[in-house]
Formats: sequence, structure tokens, C-alpha cells
Amino acid sequence: MEEITSLNNSFVKETVKLQQKKYRNSEDKFLLEGFKPIAEAIEAGIEVEALFVRSDKFEKYSFFKGRLISTTEVVLGKISTTETPPEVVGVAKQKHYSKSDLKEAKKVILLENIKDLGNLGTILRTAVAFGVDGVVLFGDCADLYNPKSVRSSVGNLWKIPVVEISTVKELKELFSDFQRVATLPLAKTYLKDFEAKEKFLVMFGSEADGLSEELKNFATTSLKIEMSDKVESLNLSVSCAVVLYKVMVL
Amino acid sequence: MEEITSLNNSFVKETVKLQQKKYRNSEDKFLLEGFKPIAEAIEAGIEVEALFVRSDKFEKYSFFKGRLISTTEVVLGKISTTETPPEVVGVAKQKHYSKSDLKEAKKVILLENIKDLGNLGTILRTAVAFGVDGVVLFGDCADLYNPKSVRSSVGNLWKIPVVEISTVKELKELFSDFQRVATLPLAKTYLKDFEAKEKFLVMFGSEADGLSEELKNFATTSLKIEMSDKVESLNLSVSCAVVLYKVMVL
Repeated sequence: MEEITSLNNSFVKETVKLQQKKYRNSEDKFLLEGFKPIAEAIEAGIEVEALFVRSDKFEKYSFFKGRLISTTEVVLGKISTTETPPEVVGVAKQKHYSKSDLKEAKKVILLENIKDLGNLGTILRTAVAFGVDGVVLFGDCADLYNPKSVRSSVGNLWKIPVVEISTVKELKELFSDFQRVATLPLAKTYLKDFEAKEKFLVMFGSEADGLSEELKNFATTSLKIEMSDKVESLNLSVSCAVVLYKVMVL
Repeated sequence: MEEITSLNNSFVKETVKLQQKKYRNSEDKFLLEGFKPIAEAIEAGIEVEALFVRSDKFEKYSFFKGRLISTTEVVLGKISTTETPPEVVGVAKQKHYSKSDLKEAKKVILLENIKDLGNLGTILRTAVAFGVDGVVLFGDCADLYNPKSVRSSVGNLWKIPVVEISTVKELKELFSDFQRVATLPLAKTYLKDFEAKEKFLVMFGSEADGLSEELKNFATTSLKIEMSDKVESLNLSVSCAVVLYKVMVL
């Protein structure tokens, strides 16, 4: 049994660095915090390399085939990002999708310049729930493997392709024959009356700035969600959910 | 012009205390952070007592009739709860609704034991957007006037009655002739097929525990949202939004 109890241990230090985007990128790894996210990641085929387990819970993780480390609450407090440290923290390899993973996709959403980590994870969870085939992150988006987006995705971070695309040229290559829908507060068509085609790309701008001109120009149609004029806008993950419920379920 | 630059100033200290629920309750006040929430609160008739304004932005707030204080970024950093201090922080009186404010309400949602402050604010924003008449907080809910729920409501915290109710007996008095809908993962009726009556109370449990037995028993019907079996559940504010879009808009 491997035991690590010192905050000065080199593997503890390396693991703490994964709280930062820079190190997640260079190491191509990320943190999984708590039993359920770890169980879901393993089930989904995510490569989990090591688990730090609080010593009194060690037996519970004897199923684990990788590097299994018994540790203390203090170490877990240091490597985890939650207020209360979980009983287990895992170190896992990031899973990457590429544009070719979207080749068969028909129902795709695009998020532009999304910064809110909670929204990002929540939107992935919703997208999987309603059967979306893939997600495009366009422009300057938050890091998918940030602990907060991992947490708010509740195990849905890797279930469908999430692909970063940075130019409209690439979008054109992938979605030339798609119905391309801009969600805009000033669109003419209400969501209620919107009819989705077999292949569509629904595009959402950031809460702060909405969709960029280049994506508005790329769109073939637009829609808006019906809402009271007492409210300026909806939360982004709420907007996504309502649109997806309408086009995917109804 | 009143100027406060010391962190030891007694009004600064009192204002910092409003970050804690205990003091918000005893003082019956709360914090407003940033220009927009303050403008919206004033417009909505919320009593804003004082504004701390960064000295270079002082002129912008000359419209304000209450106690207007010119201050420093350091003081704003101390009294605000955001990572980057806003240019202005306001101290305002809480607005309270009581059960009698729900007397005319026909379309009401209930949240049981809701703990997530972001969800709480987001749900209020969605409820106002889709025209809900009132919200019931049942059981042990998070504090509505926490800075995080204030922030995520984006100015919608006080636009419709939000009433705390602690017993089913009180619910019975208010909603005896309502269609009372439990949202449950194992309900028989799908949301798509659900038909709302003229007067309804839709009840949502917490993400962790779902609805309690006493509220399930209080319900006259139940519904579930269609979703892939790849996903265990939806985020609570997403569930609320989808249900409200269906029953309020479609």
C-alpha cells in the first residue's frame, strides 16, 4: 500500500498544479473530485491514473487498478478545490475530440466565448440529456477541464464530442449544409414557431456580449425565446436548455 | 461629500458584516454590488440606503438621494464579495413578502430545501421571465439575500413574491384548489404530455434529495422531463426552466 502524508511530496505538488490551466494543458491531465465523478469517468473509459484516498476509505477503492494512494484529509484539502475536501481525488488523462468526431453529427450546438465554468459544465450535462450529437467551443472559451466545469457537468464532460474551433472557415467546412441558427434577443422567429431541420447548428453567444457579427453572418436563420419584458435576458444554460428541449424533445 | 478611506471606519465594518447571513437577518439589509444591480433595485423601489463609490466614479452617482460615500478600491475590495471589486457597493433594505402576497397568484413554483445560491437566483430570473406569479421556499432553503443569489438573479430577486413556508398545513391553506405537481424522475407523465390547469403549484426538490415524502403526498399529479438514460438528472435551474417554458409559454 502506497501512503503519502506529506504536503511536500513531489506527486502531491504535481497534483496541486493541476488546479491551474497552464499545467492541465502541459500535462494533459485533470482532477476528479469525489467518488461519483471518478466512478463515472472510469465507466466512460477515461484513463484515471491515480487516486488519493482518505485512509479510512481506502478499502472502498480496492477495485481501482491504477496508482492507489492512502492519504490524509490535509493532503486532500490541498489538492482538491472544493470547500470541504472529498474522500478521494483522482488524476486523469484529458480526453480530446477533433473535428473529425463531428462528421456524423447532425444536431450540434455552438458556444461562443463562454467564460462561466458553471454554465459550461451545465450545458454539457443538458446537451447529453437531450441527445445533442456534439458541441463546438468557438472563440475564447473557458477551459473544459477546470475543476468547476468538471463538477458542474456531473460526469457528462466526455460523453459527446466537444471540439474547439477558432475560425468561421473551419465552421463552413463542417456545417455548410446545416441549418445554422443564431439565438438572438432581436430575432423575428419565436422559439415556439421555430422548425428545426434534420441537420442543425444552434449558436449561443456569451451572456456578456451575445453572438459576434461573424457568427450572425454565418447563420441562416435566427430565433428568440419568448419572455417577459421585465427581464433583460435568461441565464445562458437556461437559454440552451429551453431551446434544446424544444428542438430535441418536442 | 462624504469620504471614507479607512478599513477601520465603523460603517465599513458594519457593511462587511452584511456578507454574513446572521447580520443580514438582524439588520434586515443586504449588499448590492455593481452599477446595474443598484440601478435595477432603485427602479424596482428597493430602499437603497447608502452607496460606496470609487472616487473616480463619484460623479456618475450624483443622482443618488441617499448616503453617498466616496471611497477607495481597497475599501470596495473589503466590502464586496466578488473577486474583482466593483466600482460601487450599495447597502439596501431587504424586501419581504408574506403569504397574503400569494392570494391572487395562480401560477406558482415551490422549491424545497434548495441550497445552491446560484440556482436560487437563476430560478427567480427564469420565473420572472416566464411570468410565474410567485415562488414558495419550503423547508431549509438558502438565504435569498446572499450576495451570490442576489448576483445570479440579475435584478429579479424582488419582482415577484418569494415566500418562505415551513409546514404542509400552510401549503394546504394556500393551495387547496390548485393542481399540485411533483416533478419526479419516476413520474408516469412526460412533460410533453402534461396539461397544466389554470391554477397550479409546480414543486421541485433539491438536487441532492429530490422531493420529500410529505410533498409527494401533497401533490395531485406528477411529471418528469424526457431525457437520455446516459444522464442521471438535470441541473435544478435547467429543470425549472424547461418545465416553466412548457407550462407558461407553449
